[in-house]
Amino acid sequence: MNKGDGETSYAENSRVQSKIISIAKPVTEEAIIQLLSTNSAESMGIADLGCSSGPNTLSVISEIIDVIYSKCCHLGRPPPELRISLNDLYNNDFNGIFGSLPAFYKKMKEEKGPGFGACFISGVPGSFYGRLFPSKSLHFVYSSSSLHWLSQPTKRVGLILGVSVQFQKDFSLFLKSRSEEVVLGGRMVLLLMGRRSMDPTTEESCDHWELLALALMSMVSEGLIPEEKVDTFNVPYYAPCAEEVKLEIQKDGSFIVDRLQVFEIDGDGGGDTLSSGQLVAKTIRAVAESMLESHFGSDIMDDLFRRYAKMVDNHLSKTAITTYISLVVSIIRR
Amino acid sequence: MNKGDGETSYAENSRVQSKIISIAKPVTEEAIIQLLSTNSAESMGIADLGCSSGPNTLSVISEIIDVIYSKCCHLGRPPPELRISLNDLYNNDFNGIFGSLPAFYKKMKEEKGPGFGACFISGVPGSFYGRLFPSKSLHFVYSSSSLHWLSQPTKRVGLILGVSVQFQKDFSLFLKSRSEEVVLGGRMVLLLMGRRSMDPTTEESCDHWELLALALMSMVSEGLIPEEKVDTFNVPYYAPCAEEVKLEIQKDGSFIVDRLQVFEIDGDGGGDTLSSGQLVAKTIRAVAESMLESHFGSDIMDDLFRRYAKMVDNHLSKTAITTYISLVVSIIRR
Repeated sequence: MNKGDGETSYAENSRVQSKIISIAKPVTEEAIIQLLSTNSAESMGIADLGCSSGPNTLSVISEIIDVIYSKCCHLGRPPPELRISLNDLYNNDFNGIFGSLPAFYKKMKEEKGPGFGACFISGVPGSFYGRLFPSKSLHFVYSSSSLHWLSQPTKRVGLILGVSVQFQKDFSLFLKSRSEEVVLGGRMVLLLMGRRSMDPTTEESCDHWELLALALMSMVSEGLIPEEKVDTFNVPYYAPCAEEVKLEIQKDGSFIVDRLQVFEIDGDGGGDTLSSGQLVAKTIRAVAESMLESHFGSDIMDDLFRRYAKMVDNHLSKTAITTYISLVVSIIRR
Repeated sequence: MNKGDGETSYAENSRVQSKIISIAKPVTEEAIIQLLSTNSAESMGIADLGCSSGPNTLSVISEIIDVIYSKCCHLGRPPPELRISLNDLYNNDFNGIFGSLPAFYKKMKEEKGPGFGACFISGVPGSFYGRLFPSKSLHFVYSSSSLHWLSQPTKRVGLILGVSVQFQKDFSLFLKSRSEEVVLGGRMVLLLMGRRSMDPTTEESCDHWELLALALMSMVSEGLIPEEKVDTFNVPYYAPCAEEVKLEIQKDGSFIVDRLQVFEIDGDGGGDTLSSGQLVAKTIRAVAESMLESHFGSDIMDDLFRRYAKMVDNHLSKTAITTYISLVVSIIRR
C-alpha cells in the first residue's frame, strides 16, 4: 500500500474498497445483529483483519459500533465493553491510524452522547495467516479486500493451479488460526475479490494483474525493462470462486456458512477528467506500487501506469464485463 | 521524543532511561515472581505504559518474558499465554516498534526453543491518565520514565505548588484507571524521576528543567528569543518525593505498597569525547526537542543545547550532587 495521503496514496485511492464495504454492509449488519441476539457478553472482542490505513479503516469500525449501539438500544440493554483490534502487516501505517484516533473518539462521544461506553482500540501487527489473538477472545471478525492477498508470491503465468493451491493452504491456515481465537457462536464476515466461474482461466471479470503483466511486457518489447525481471515478478494474489471458499470452510469444519454472496462492483465509470482505465490504474497503483518498485525500481512507475490505464480502457471497451467481482461470506463458529 | 534513529533521536540517546530500567530490575523480577507464585492464570495480561520507541521498548518486554519463562520452568508448569500491550501517546512511533517485532519474535523462538508459547503483542495508543484497557484484563503493569510527565503543562516558575497539585491529580487518575484494569492480586512496578526531599524547592539533584530555563534566559538576554516566549513555556514535568507517591496510593486505596525505593543514577560521567554536560544535553534534547521546537522554532535548538551542556557541566562541577534520582514503587491490587 502507498503510505501517507499524497496523490498516489492508498488513502486517496481506496474508493473501490470503500464501495465493496458499502455493498456488503447489509451482510455485516445482519451478522452483528444475530450475534447480539444470541450472545450477551459484557465485553466484546472485535477484529478488523487487513485494516490498512486511510479513511476506510475507521469508517468500518464506526459502522460496526453504530450497529452494536443501535441493536443494544433496541434490545434495551447497555452496549458491551468493546475491545477493537486493528490488524495488518508489520509495515502498515499504524502511526497514521493512531494519529486519527483522538478525533474518532471525540466524534463517537458527540454522536452517542453520554451513553458512549468503554471502547478500547489497539493495533495488532502481523500476518493473519497464523495466530494473532489470545484464545477465545473474539466475538466478531471482519476482513475486507485482504484475503485475496496470499502469504507468498506464487508463479502465475501458466501455473494458475499453483496459485489456487497456495490460496487453499493460506485460507485453511487462516480458518484454523481464527477457529482458536473466535468464541463459540462468534462470527466472521469476510469480503474478498473473487470470480464467478469455477474455471480460473475463464476471462469473465477484468483480470487486473494479467493486464499489468501485458503493460510490463510492452515495456520489455521496447527494451525499457529486461524480460527476466518480468519473469521473476509474481503478484501474491488470487481471486477464488465461491465454491473454493465454501470447500475450505467445510474442510476446516469449525465454521458454518450463514451467507455466501457474489457482488459485482463497477469501477468509478470514468468522470469528467479521468477515464475508467485511469481510475483502475490509480486504484491498482495505490495497492501494488511498493511491490512493483522494489522489483523494478521507481523510474518506470509513471510510464507503466500510463500504459496500464490505456490497456484497461481498451479492454473494457471491447468486452462487456464487470470491473470488479467481490465475494462476501458470513460464517459462524460452531 | 525525537523519532527515528538519527544522532539526536531518542533511540540513540536513551541510555539513562536504560540504566534506570537495569537498576530497578531486581524489583521488577521480584514482583513478577511473586505474581506467578500466587496466580496461575492460563492467560496473562501485561502492559508497558509509556513504552516509547527505540531499543528500550522491546528489551523491557524481553526481560519480563525471560523472568516469566524461567519462573514457570522452576515451578514445573507451562508458561501462560502472554497478552502484551505497548502503550504510549497517539503520536508515539509505533511503526518503528512494529517494524522490529518480526526480529523480536524470531529471537524469542530461538532463545526459548520449541517451548516458546503464545505471545501476542499489540499497540495501545492513548494517555495513561484515563482508561486504556478492558476491565480486569491486566496482571502486570510496568512503567518506566513516564509518570513524571504530567497530563498538561503547568506554570512552574514560582509556582512549584501548582505543579505538585497537578501531579497529585494526574497520579490519582492514573491509579483509579489502573485499579479498574488490574485483576485482584495483580501488580504494578512504576519507575519515575523523583526527589529525595519533601520540599520541592530544595536543590538536591540536578534540576534539568531549571537549567534549561536558565539556558533559554541567557538567549533572551542576548536578544535571540523574546522573553514572553520563555514566560509562556512550561514543561509538563514533576519529580515527586517518595512520600507524595505513597500518599496518593494510600488515598486511592486500591493498591498496597510492597516496595518503594529511591535510586541515584549517575550520568555517563563524561567519556573521551563528550563531557557529562554534553551527555545530559543529548538525553534531554532527545526527550524535549519536539516540545521546544513547536514553541521556539527549530533554528535555536543547536545553540540552546550547546549553552545547556555548558551550564550542566558548570553546575555539576560546583556541587557534589547526583545527576538523576529515580523512584521505584512496586504495588499490589487488593
